[in-house]
Amino acid sequence: MRPAAFRDIAHVGSVELFTSVPEETRDFFVDLMAMKEVHREGDSIYVHAWDDYERHTVKITGRDRAGVGRTFLRAASPEALRRRVAAIEEAGLGTGWSEAEFGLGPAYLFADPDGHEMGLYYETERYVATEEHRPSLKNQASAFPGRGANVRRLDHVNFLASDVPAASAFMSGTLGARATEQIVTDEGETAAIWYSVSDKSYDLVYTSDWLGARGRLHHVALATDTREDILRAADVFLEAGVHIETGPHKHAIQQTFFLYVWEPGGNRIELCNAGARLILAPDWEVITWTQAERAKGQAWGLKTIESFHTHGTPVID
Amino acid sequence: MRPAAFRDIAHVGSVELFTSVPEETRDFFVDLMAMKEVHREGDSIYVHAWDDYERHTVKITGRDRAGVGRTFLRAASPEALRRRVAAIEEAGLGTGWSEAEFGLGPAYLFADPDGHEMGLYYETERYVATEEHRPSLKNQASAFPGRGANVRRLDHVNFLASDVPAASAFMSGTLGARATEQIVTDEGETAAIWYSVSDKSYDLVYTSDWLGARGRLHHVALATDTREDILRAADVFLEAGVHIETGPHKHAIQQTFFLYVWEPGGNRIELCNAGARLILAPDWEVITWTQAERAKGQAWGLKTIESFHTHGTPVID
Amino acid sequence: MRPAAFRDIAHVGSVELFTSVPEETRDFFVDLMAMKEVHREGDSIYVHAWDDYERHTVKITGRDRAGVGRTFLRAASPEALRRRVAAIEEAGLGTGWSEAEFGLGPAYLFADPDGHEMGLYYETERYVATEEHRPSLKNQASAFPGRGANVRRLDHVNFLASDVPAASAFMSGTLGARATEQIVTDEGETAAIWYSVSDKSYDLVYTSDWLGARGRLHHVALATDTREDILRAADVFLEAGVHIETGPHKHAIQQTFFLYVWEPGGNRIELCNAGARLILAPDWEVITWTQAERAKGQAWGLKTIESFHTHGTPVID
Amino acid sequence: MRPAAFRDIAHVGSVELFTSVPEETRDFFVDLMAMKEVHREGDSIYVHAWDDYERHTVKITGRDRAGVGRTFLRAASPEALRRRVAAIEEAGLGTGWSEAEFGLGPAYLFADPDGHEMGLYYETERYVATEEHRPSLKNQASAFPGRGANVRRLDHVNFLASDVPAASAFMSGTLGARATEQIVTDEGETAAIWYSVSDKSYDLVYTSDWLGARGRLHHVALATDTREDILRAADVFLEAGVHIETGPHKHAIQQTFFLYVWEPGGNRIELCNAGARLILAPDWEVITWTQAERAKGQAWGLKTIESFHTHGTPVID
Repeated sequence: MRPAAFRDIAHVGSVELFTSVPEETRDFFVDLMAMKEVHREGDSIYVHAWDDYERHTVKITGRDRAGVGRTFLRAASPEALRRRVAAIEEAGLGTGWSEAEFGLGPAYLFADPDGHEMGLYYETERYVATEEHRPSLKNQASAFPGRGANVRRLDHVNFLASDVPAASAFMSGTLGARATEQIVTDEGETAAIWYSVSDKSYDLVYTSDWLGARGRLHHVALATDTREDILRAADVFLEAGVHIETGPHKHAIQQTFFLYVWEPGGNRIELCNAGARLILAPDWEVITWTQAERAKGQAWGLKTIESFHTHGTPVID
Repeated sequence: MRPAAFRDIAHVGSVELFTSVPEETRDFFVDLMAMKEVHREGDSIYVHAWDDYERHTVKITGRDRAGVGRTFLRAASPEALRRRVAAIEEAGLGTGWSEAEFGLGPAYLFADPDGHEMGLYYETERYVATEEHRPSLKNQASAFPGRGANVRRLDHVNFLASDVPAASAFMSGTLGARATEQIVTDEGETAAIWYSVSDKSYDLVYTSDWLGARGRLHHVALATDTREDILRAADVFLEAGVHIETGPHKHAIQQTFFLYVWEPGGNRIELCNAGARLILAPDWEVITWTQAERAKGQAWGLKTIESFHTHGTPVID
Repeated sequence: MRPAAFRDIAHVGSVELFTSVPEETRDFFVDLMAMKEVHREGDSIYVHAWDDYERHTVKITGRDRAGVGRTFLRAASPEALRRRVAAIEEAGLGTGWSEAEFGLGPAYLFADPDGHEMGLYYETERYVATEEHRPSLKNQASAFPGRGANVRRLDHVNFLASDVPAASAFMSGTLGARATEQIVTDEGETAAIWYSVSDKSYDLVYTSDWLGARGRLHHVALATDTREDILRAADVFLEAGVHIETGPHKHAIQQTFFLYVWEPGGNRIELCNAGARLILAPDWEVITWTQAERAKGQAWGLKTIESFHTHGTPVID
Repeated sequence: MRPAAFRDIAHVGSVELFTSVPEETRDFFVDLMAMKEVHREGDSIYVHAWDDYERHTVKITGRDRAGVGRTFLRAASPEALRRRVAAIEEAGLGTGWSEAEFGLGPAYLFADPDGHEMGLYYETERYVATEEHRPSLKNQASAFPGRGANVRRLDHVNFLASDVPAASAFMSGTLGARATEQIVTDEGETAAIWYSVSDKSYDLVYTSDWLGARGRLHHVALATDTREDILRAADVFLEAGVHIETGPHKHAIQQTFFLYVWEPGGNRIELCNAGARLILAPDWEVITWTQAERAKGQAWGLKTIESFHTHGTPVID
């Protein structure tokens, strides 16, 4: 069942990635994913996916180690923002308001119980295409690039968490996300859980961190319009020497058609396509997968690759 | 901007089609669209799309003339249902509760100002696949058919209306749908308007009826996972002797990849695919197209076919 | 039935296009079709499709008017070259050997009875990718571009001819091509005829010129790997302001999935995809379409656009 | 370089599969691959792919063990047939003429040096669709099924051979096939070699049998029009409980997009798609892959599954 606060968050707005090679990471997103550089500020480069209505989609920040920075969530209304901020404050996880976020109005900064930095905002700046990138059809944010992975928008962020139940309680109880699928171990522990704040089948995911570390990233996913975009991207990555970790294939869980690669900074990036699948039922019951079911591999029988369970960012020795 | 009541309706549940050849219409949906017959009752045959979580997707009812019967909308919660029923009663358009709808709990029946019959409900029966149609993956409603148009779910209903502004006022003011795109004539009249009750770009559409008639249908649309499904369906329709009216092509408005055919009863049916396009912005501003812009034809230059402006059901002399 | 000399010609090698705006035409092929500029010489720019094993695919030559220049055909062997040259000489249509063709060994120049310039050769230079374009897989000519129309190779040339029967007699009797499909008028005249020199369903086409002119061009076609490449290209052309004449759709004749655009010089360019269709039967009987059949339009019902019957290059008043 | 006799064989005509469960194997081809049963005779069931111009595509024969029966090749002409028969007789591998083959005129029976049964013929019976399967477009053999894997035609047969060099010498020297790609071990031995008799990149393949056995089968492949057909088929196989061995993915060698499954009798069946790739060069030089290159796995990094090197039919203890 969906939590009372479901719909206070409209969607994931943007995500920040740390990388020790920011220019290479930028080139990965621009040259291969078909995103545009829209801004630079301090150690950060902001890139934009072609149909994102906001100012940027991914913020790339130079750091000594890879990992995930702040994930921003857009509230559904000013009232929804106030309600969620109050709830976060009550949970003692807030760090206060920021007026300094690029492209955003006042943003309330906080962290989930596992230490992943987040922010919540309502006011936002619209992306306005420059002449060069003005779209022919006025119902899209910028011109269709038609190259590389050609990603349309951010899809989801999959965090690694030292304590999935604690993170889950926050995600559903405080933020109002609804769980749509989960993996439960034979011991009854939730090993991974997929949360949706929208009609999409998932927006935010917690996977148990095999090292017990806090605040790490499993992957960030960007959505393509077709599975063919992903097949084409595989050839593009092959030519570019990008590390293709696994796929293209179809997940059994959530049925996403996927391709996982590592951007030059080492963060795992997924290309994903959900076809016409949405979770429209307001009373969707979470789907539970057992360890045995998960061990069967992906939908069409591909065995889950070892590194999928051993690589997260930052990499820890 | 979205109306205050936005999100009280979760999604379109099912739609009823009238046809003078119900068995042929049933065969169209079952043999070519890959739906399943799930129930018969009186003059009606109920068919189900493979990933619909509810009991049925389309109700086919024998009548002397083609047209649209009742469109059911699922409320987001019992409270949302109460709120919308109160608003409909206030608008004086309700006809009362029915306990007799197949697969549904109590449903409140009403009509929009143009006379299109509608129903609102929260309680619903889940589709439970028979052994033969049990899916291999438990996160889908029934087995993947892999044939014909292979439609996953209902997508939208496009009504013809004698008075688009009146219907619009009801749709946004009473039902809480948000307009995402519209066509406005040089005289400032809304000739067509697309409404969304979800994160989809549209769920319900009003197009001005060129004959000024009330309660007619332009088309019912079903969603496929890929554009390739639609290309394949075109060949399937060609072999089956189904009238292909126009497409496959891409609409400029809403950017839907489409194919329009007429089912044997004469109702226009659309196959549609939106790729990864969703309207996630909670403050999406309606996109307005002028007559001149619309006259340019579809996205890739296809001229809109004449019958698209002259064929509606029921057909009126 | 196939002619005795069938298989003496291996495939179409390259084609020359005339354009009054050679740099714009070059940019069309390079930026939108994903070809590479490989050479410049005199008034000509040579461009290469990514999996063409020869030095170039299209030669773009500056001229005052658009149109088709020389089409080169590669003989299957030195002996086959000698045989065909002897036959052409016997037909009185040869103009002698040239040693000066870029990328080719000795080439025998001639014209078909309608005046379309052609050349026949066996010796050819292999395309060797520069470091920048070296493919990851050594069984392809150069790196996969993954952008725009992403054309793999030249597919066919469709000539307009004042006298289709005369051109046909030369094509089958002298060059040894086999006819695979044709349109025959109610008066018994061949209005269009599709010739294959390979296992492809066609390589060279003659269509009756509605103006009775000689030596004109209907279109040059390049092949993509998938229909999805063509759908994506349609969006790319839309953004680039290229004139999309008709499509994407599927021809009834030859069943090609097509998109027709006009390059900046005015020549009609087709993107085509044949799926897995090949003509493997050595005794394939030509398929004949009547005028009535052709009047039905394309495979899925699209009416043939007027300009398809009125635009050829050079444009004649 | 291509052998002197290249082009004497036009294409692979049909292939016979042995199975201990012929009715289940038949259902696999009919229900999942979208082929039609066209004939029964003795212990054999003949099935036809929708665009095969000949009477049947695969002959299914009941036997105690799985494996490959006779592969028929169509000669390019009566003269070509005579030439190849003379060469086979000279090689001492012929067993004489048969007049009793379903759908074929006189066929010359023989075996390759490894014991794989083959037949060569020129006269053949055309497939004529029954009313039910008559195509809407007269340039295709029968109606487009639009279901399951929807295979258009036979693509290739991949044999296991105890002695690849001997089989190769016969394939090129006696039959006139040309090698297009091969794997050569560090010891200089050909471990696998791909032969083409047409413009397709391969039609017949020899892979070294890891058990040193004679006459076994690695797989039979059928061609689909699109990669999307193969992705859809994967879901169809998943629902049907068919063993999906590996894929969908893309081979580095020959770049084929593939999916391997085992039909109920145990024979490995490939679905393949080559896009627009053809080998048009008459002087194509065989591409050689080293063991190290092959060890890299498939094009996008998928490791070759173990059973790919251990499962052949008949299965030997």
